[in-house]
Amino acid sequence: MAKDRVVLAYSGGLDTSVAIGWIGEQTGAEVITVAVDVGQGGEDLETIRQRALDCGAVEAYVADAKDEFANEYCMPELKANGLYMDRYPLVSAISRPVIVKHLVSAARQFGATTVAHGCTGKGNDQVRFENGITSLAPDLKCLSPVRDLALTREFAIDYANKHDLPIETTHHNPFSVDQNVWGRAVETGYLEDLWNAPTKDVYVYTDDPTYSPVPDEVIITFEQGIPVQIDGRYVTPLQAIQELNRRAGAQGIGRIDVVEDRMVGIKSREIYEAPGAMTLIEAHKDLENVTMDREQARFKRRVSERWAELVYEGQWFSPLKRSLDAFIDDTQQYVSGDVRMVLHGGRATPNGRRSETSLYDFNLATYDAGDSFDQSLSRGFIELTGLPSQLAAARDVKFGRGEAIGKSALN
Amino acid sequence: MAKDRVVLAYSGGLDTSVAIGWIGEQTGAEVITVAVDVGQGGEDLETIRQRALDCGAVEAYVADAKDEFANEYCMPELKANGLYMDRYPLVSAISRPVIVKHLVSAARQFGATTVAHGCTGKGNDQVRFENGITSLAPDLKCLSPVRDLALTREFAIDYANKHDLPIETTHHNPFSVDQNVWGRAVETGYLEDLWNAPTKDVYVYTDDPTYSPVPDEVIITFEQGIPVQIDGRYVTPLQAIQELNRRAGAQGIGRIDVVEDRMVGIKSREIYEAPGAMTLIEAHKDLENVTMDREQARFKRRVSERWAELVYEGQWFSPLKRSLDAFIDDTQQYVSGDVRMVLHGGRATPNGRRSETSLYDFNLATYDAGDSFDQSLSRGFIELTGLPSQLAAARDVKFGRGEAIGKSALN
Amino acid sequence: MAKDRVVLAYSGGLDTSVAIGWIGEQTGAEVITVAVDVGQGGEDLETIRQRALDCGAVEAYVADAKDEFANEYCMPELKANGLYMDRYPLVSAISRPVIVKHLVSAARQFGATTVAHGCTGKGNDQVRFENGITSLAPDLKCLSPVRDLALTREFAIDYANKHDLPIETTHHNPFSVDQNVWGRAVETGYLEDLWNAPTKDVYVYTDDPTYSPVPDEVIITFEQGIPVQIDGRYVTPLQAIQELNRRAGAQGIGRIDVVEDRMVGIKSREIYEAPGAMTLIEAHKDLENVTMDREQARFKRRVSERWAELVYEGQWFSPLKRSLDAFIDDTQQYVSGDVRMVLHGGRATPNGRRSETSLYDFNLATYDAGDSFDQSLSRGFIELTGLPSQLAAARDVKFGRGEAIGKSALN
Amino acid sequence: MAKDRVVLAYSGGLDTSVAIGWIGEQTGAEVITVAVDVGQGGEDLETIRQRALDCGAVEAYVADAKDEFANEYCMPELKANGLYMDRYPLVSAISRPVIVKHLVSAARQFGATTVAHGCTGKGNDQVRFENGITSLAPDLKCLSPVRDLALTREFAIDYANKHDLPIETTHHNPFSVDQNVWGRAVETGYLEDLWNAPTKDVYVYTDDPTYSPVPDEVIITFEQGIPVQIDGRYVTPLQAIQELNRRAGAQGIGRIDVVEDRMVGIKSREIYEAPGAMTLIEAHKDLENVTMDREQARFKRRVSERWAELVYEGQWFSPLKRSLDAFIDDTQQYVSGDVRMVLHGGRATPNGRRSETSLYDFNLATYDAGDSFDQSLSRGFIELTGLPSQLAAARDVKFGRGEAIGKSALN
Repeated sequence: MAKDRVVLAYSGGLDTSVAIGWIGEQTGAEVITVAVDVGQGGEDLETIRQRALDCGAVEAYVADAKDEFANEYCMPELKANGLYMDRYPLVSAISRPVIVKHLVSAARQFGATTVAHGCTGKGNDQVRFENGITSLAPDLKCLSPVRDLALTREFAIDYANKHDLPIETTHHNPFSVDQNVWGRAVETGYLEDLWNAPTKDVYVYTDDPTYSPVPDEVIITFEQGIPVQIDGRYVTPLQAIQELNRRAGAQGIGRIDVVEDRMVGIKSREIYEAPGAMTLIEAHKDLENVTMDREQARFKRRVSERWAELVYEGQWFSPLKRSLDAFIDDTQQYVSGDVRMVLHGGRATPNGRRSETSLYDFNLATYDAGDSFDQSLSRGFIELTGLPSQLAAARDVKFGRGEAIGKSALN
Repeated sequence: MAKDRVVLAYSGGLDTSVAIGWIGEQTGAEVITVAVDVGQGGEDLETIRQRALDCGAVEAYVADAKDEFANEYCMPELKANGLYMDRYPLVSAISRPVIVKHLVSAARQFGATTVAHGCTGKGNDQVRFENGITSLAPDLKCLSPVRDLALTREFAIDYANKHDLPIETTHHNPFSVDQNVWGRAVETGYLEDLWNAPTKDVYVYTDDPTYSPVPDEVIITFEQGIPVQIDGRYVTPLQAIQELNRRAGAQGIGRIDVVEDRMVGIKSREIYEAPGAMTLIEAHKDLENVTMDREQARFKRRVSERWAELVYEGQWFSPLKRSLDAFIDDTQQYVSGDVRMVLHGGRATPNGRRSETSLYDFNLATYDAGDSFDQSLSRGFIELTGLPSQLAAARDVKFGRGEAIGKSALN
Repeated sequence: MAKDRVVLAYSGGLDTSVAIGWIGEQTGAEVITVAVDVGQGGEDLETIRQRALDCGAVEAYVADAKDEFANEYCMPELKANGLYMDRYPLVSAISRPVIVKHLVSAARQFGATTVAHGCTGKGNDQVRFENGITSLAPDLKCLSPVRDLALTREFAIDYANKHDLPIETTHHNPFSVDQNVWGRAVETGYLEDLWNAPTKDVYVYTDDPTYSPVPDEVIITFEQGIPVQIDGRYVTPLQAIQELNRRAGAQGIGRIDVVEDRMVGIKSREIYEAPGAMTLIEAHKDLENVTMDREQARFKRRVSERWAELVYEGQWFSPLKRSLDAFIDDTQQYVSGDVRMVLHGGRATPNGRRSETSLYDFNLATYDAGDSFDQSLSRGFIELTGLPSQLAAARDVKFGRGEAIGKSALN
Repeated sequence: MAKDRVVLAYSGGLDTSVAIGWIGEQTGAEVITVAVDVGQGGEDLETIRQRALDCGAVEAYVADAKDEFANEYCMPELKANGLYMDRYPLVSAISRPVIVKHLVSAARQFGATTVAHGCTGKGNDQVRFENGITSLAPDLKCLSPVRDLALTREFAIDYANKHDLPIETTHHNPFSVDQNVWGRAVETGYLEDLWNAPTKDVYVYTDDPTYSPVPDEVIITFEQGIPVQIDGRYVTPLQAIQELNRRAGAQGIGRIDVVEDRMVGIKSREIYEAPGAMTLIEAHKDLENVTMDREQARFKRRVSERWAELVYEGQWFSPLKRSLDAFIDDTQQYVSGDVRMVLHGGRATPNGRRSETSLYDFNLATYDAGDSFDQSLSRGFIELTGLPSQLAAARDVKFGRGEAIGKSALN
């Protein structure tokens, strides 16, 4: 009878390299590794593939998903202006579903019944992986070697040494890092004291904004919410993010230090870097202000908050997330035009915008000659919009409550 | 029979100085001026009072409302983190109700039946004044000389010259400005082209962040959402705002360039400066992240949005605004502690926070020794929180819809 | 030079018959009448068309829009479960946009520059007509003869008699009524005293539920939120509404007595009858409970509330309304199946439902043999969902606040 | 050394009677029973107390909490109009916190370290008990004998027989029931097929509405959201609920058949009876329509939904629930007056209401003589509220999208 098969989300690092053999020993299953390039940098896929096979994988699946990630995950996030707790651009949260999709594809391709990942048992990523997997493939089982098979860092070093695995075991990184083209997330021991300021070595995607070079002005052109040109040159979404990572990163833009509410009920402190993402979101919001109807924009803010919560919580493939996307897509049909951003000193600031599809009407807005606004309309507008509060105030006067000041009281 | 009386919101400037006489001529009423100091700077109240009398006012009411404004208007705004369209800290919007309160007091004191203000007929401030007045004193009538009595700027200059009023008529300010201790709002002709960048002369409260001095680190101590110390020295709310206006202003913090949805249905472009306000709001939000329960914080964001819309729209004294304040006040009981902010290059960034009432639990959060989080609990949590999406995915598989990948489909 | 042309929403009744001539006299324009059948009953379109011409219309446009109204207005309302103030199924509110569409079509066809309607100046319908018109045809002007040309009821009777118009002038209906296939709205003098109970003669679409015939059981089959069969017979949306109007009306279902917040800032009391509409909404909600994901359903309730507010306020063609429809449509893809309703005594009550696309899982839900729910998962779920409140409680204990009961306090 | 002590939520029934001994055997702890009267009827507290001692409890705590439950749990629920999924008046959900409070009091009084309850591992009540306990007493541990100690029904019968416990073991109730003065909740095997209609024997609090007696008219008087009189007689909240349970129950009011989204991620079918509760909620909503400001009422609906979700999910003592209560209490200050309800045929229908604190203004609302509404104000109101959609429509015309109909297109 054929052995059970497990697909393992594989980074090429120590823990998941050890997991290949350890899962085999503990479960008797064959292990297929899956490595996905979402722009995290580091080793090339072929090196990672070979290491997986050397560590005992029966198959090693690799995929360059950088454009897929930019187009199908970063762009919806941009259209949503998705910021968890108004701060965090969901760097890790949106990379999990694209990896999950490849894990499930590999599981189907190689006939696996279980998907394994390297996450611990107290973070968000275990939830994102496992909810993602069961939301795409409800029959697959999930396994976390760290959480479920006691694969600690110390055990991994011993195991790698004992089995002579082709992987570095001596280097101790003081930071726990996750990164991709959309940004970078860092946690670390000394930052767990919330009063400690981040040190310079925390940051990799951004230079110190305290010593920023001269301001860099960039014009970003959007079509229906998607960046299509930078300074007049056509770009793909991936290229837009990469170029802005470089230029905004040089200005120290996109550093975030936040105490965050995790899914599992605790607060944790996170440091993020997302220079390109934050620049794009700022520009996109500014263009929405010009091209989106007031009430649509107000409701979209509530939609964005819920969207960000869902994505943070691993519900990328959930029914509500899809329905919110339908709303968001509908709002983007006119979000087209140019935004001029000044990049400097840690800030990406819009200082000009123009759009064929703008709802701004110069003649209605101007205080100069050419004003087409009929000011006589305001009186009826004010009286009727104010009528409910006026009636409530008359009641307050009658009952002597609130801040209303009755005629008789003071007269 | 006694003449009707009108109280007039009086700035001491050309338009409202002319309005004193013009209202009298047009309506036959006596005019009582009301000048309120909300930290706008400029001339002292006594000078303004004397000019009002010289221009024909029968009474001239003046009030130093700086502390009242800081305590009763800026502090609720800070507790709410009230930002209209996620951007605008409601600089003018929160000053209108305090002025309205003095207008109504003066109307009661002097037996007036009408309140007049100097706003035009296409902005938000006419709405805020008039809705404010009828929400406090439902029997009072409102009058806008600019809108209702055709008091144009050109007419005012002629009138002032003809009547030899003691007021400067030659100076032409290219900007339309409103300012107080919470911030400064600017509109102007050339900015009505949205593509034009603001020029340096727009700004008064802030220095150019491009040439920022060395970073300034400040520790702000909050008690129940209110700043009570700066760098360990006790301060009143007014002092806190003033000191941070100075220090954050020197770093170019709090400049805002936004295309805004006005109440009257049009979009307009506004420039704001609010160095102290934006620094306080950033610090306050950071402290809330540490001290406020997740679900409370999520709902508070929705409350804040509605709060900001209401205040923007002149509904400060409305029933809903008061009920939202009851919610907000309840959330602030534990928002106490220190936040360390770095002020530099246009940004106010928290980089440390500590609180006796924190909900952050080091032992639950740490990845080091001392971890008290039971990771075995995560499995049940993940499975049950993920169950609805899993059931939905099984249905997608059954009907071949969505992104779900069925076993048979690929196997 | 050609005369200006006005299209007039024409009911065939006294006021709009008089308006034909009166608009001509007051404005010098030619009048084209537009009569739209949305299932209001009464005279046939040809009779109405002839009367318009006899009263002086230069053209008389008529349209049978019953199916259009049912398909494109009633069905979106059903998918939204749109109930203003949780009560009112938007009977008049959804008929205005379909009439507006024909008014605009007629205006374009006959070269009119103005659209006139018979609404007063204090109700919602003037807003719905005028906002609808400018949302479809921003260049058209609006005119209300009652509000803008002083066309009172008394004047209309005199005018009709003097000009010998072919219209009844003696009948005095004590009720102000608007009706269509989706329901009926009634206002009247004695009901303006909120303490007065409605009398029997208010009602036309429904029999008295106090003396209800034997219960009527009906099975309604939905496909993606739309009723497609009744008791196994295929029906169009129009037929579904008509049949349920008859059957639910006989049982006294769908009577609503509500004090409502009007757009113009006042409260008013309204009586509605909507037997078919309320039966369909009840059935549709019940089927959604079975087929819709929990989080999707929760957010949809908020979407529905906003949808109902917008439609009530004449924003049918607004950008936000369209984006909300995109959300709602996405939620309906699995809302298919049968609901069995008991119609009796004024109530339409679901007592059974079945669906191929149900998310109810008998094996997970049952307490009998066959239970597939793993109860051991609950512990981790409860502990982690409860962790935030537990941490907050520990803080309450520490500071002696709230209802938390510390160990030492009582032990 | 003293033995550990466990407080056990005790109903007097078979399962919890067996649990007394079984917990002792399995854990070595002493068991203290806690029985709380929340109006569930059945045996008196003294009988239950004696049985607990006879079954081996070392202490038996009993409390008549009927008034406490009505005042502190049912009344906040009424002020909130708390209906989970717009249907379920939270019958069981609001009784858990009052029981929890007594459990924690007993635990403190008798020095227990653990609280045990009789709930299964797949329902909501385990969550409500355990989250409630850790939200009041974060140091206490929780135990579910059914879930954690394998206490099945079959085992319980055997155990009771073997140990000769003074409890009936032969009767098999086909229904799983929870009841209190606020209502009654029923689950049962045959109802797990969603297509089966409930049979008559499911219901106890309500008579069959098909054969309703003559209509019963009742006048309920509220003060600040709380019922204080019925038909002019002063009542306590408990008396109000009890009298309306009797009178509305006789008319078959308050039967609910709903497929519900449980906390643990599954859907289940529930039958509820809540005649008094539903009558009070209907009356209260009607009075709010008359006395509450429009915007306050709109936001309160969102607050109520969140409130109901939180209470359903066992978060009665959570920080957000308390902040929502602060909001709700503030909205109730003017919710005073009389509502006349017709009770008949399963429906409680308001048909008249009067209030000193009403916001309804007859003179503004009437279409008769005495109308004080200035219709000329409507024009400006309509034009400015419609302006955003008009601008959006002009854009649609320009780009040939949406439903907008351009002049040139058809002319």
